[in-house]
Amino acid sequence: KFNTYVTLKVQNVKSTTVAVRGDQPCWEQDFMFEISRLDLGLIVEVWNKGLIWDTLVGTVWIALKAIHQSDEEGPGEWSTLEAEVVMKHDEICGTKNPTPHKILLDTRFELPFGECISITYPGC
Amino acid sequence: KFNTYVTLKVQNVKSTTVAVRGDQPCWEQDFMFEISRLDLGLIVEVWNKGLIWDTLVGTVWIALKAIHQSDEEGPGEWSTLEAEVVMKHDEICGTKNPTPHKILLDTRFELPFGECISITYPGC
Repeated sequence: KFNTYVTLKVQNVKSTTVAVRGDQPCWEQDFMFEISRLDLGLIVEVWNKGLIWDTLVGTVWIALKAIHQSDEEGPGEWSTLEAEVVMKHDEICGTKNPTPHKILLDTRFELPFGECISITYPGC
Repeated sequence: KFNTYVTLKVQNVKSTTVAVRGDQPCWEQDFMFEISRLDLGLIVEVWNKGLIWDTLVGTVWIALKAIHQSDEEGPGEWSTLEAEVVMKHDEICGTKNPTPHKILLDTRFELPFGECISITYPGC
């Protein structure tokens, strides 16, 4: 019944995973972003692919300030997908209304290029 | 240089066009949504597909209340893509900061199914 993919958004850029079938999908994909504004957040959306339209399963918002620096992958952290976003001054600043769904995300900053870079991968 | 696709969002559902190359892309795709809340809007985003991430070209927001009812396709209307969204009570209520880009959209409500349905297609 589920055929889900994940979109990761920071500032005005977006990356998308492949769609994976099943109610315990595993994407295991790495993504990288160049970050210039640390006051924003990483928006993680899980979408269920449909025949006519895709339906939002839920959203996780992670403040960039809360992401630690590391050169190595970590165990990740489970986050609850929430149904709605909370806005402040036309920017997302959080989420509300938890769904029963969770996602495992490993987020970190890397500094080898002189700019802050975050590598994120969802997995099960 | 450009390889763009369009996402159309209403409430918690989303449809996406194919990606089309060139600086005058033509999608000519029809989409349909079932609408239950007329106080919201249709969010049209144009994205430029990249190798690592996709970049937002701009957004158009159309109030559902402003969409007319019709059983036939119309000539459509050109809308300016704007760089940012304006929020009110955690919902998008408009856009700001125009980009040089425009998109032709034909939006309308159909009532054959007993529910309000909007068919939208971007084209050049």
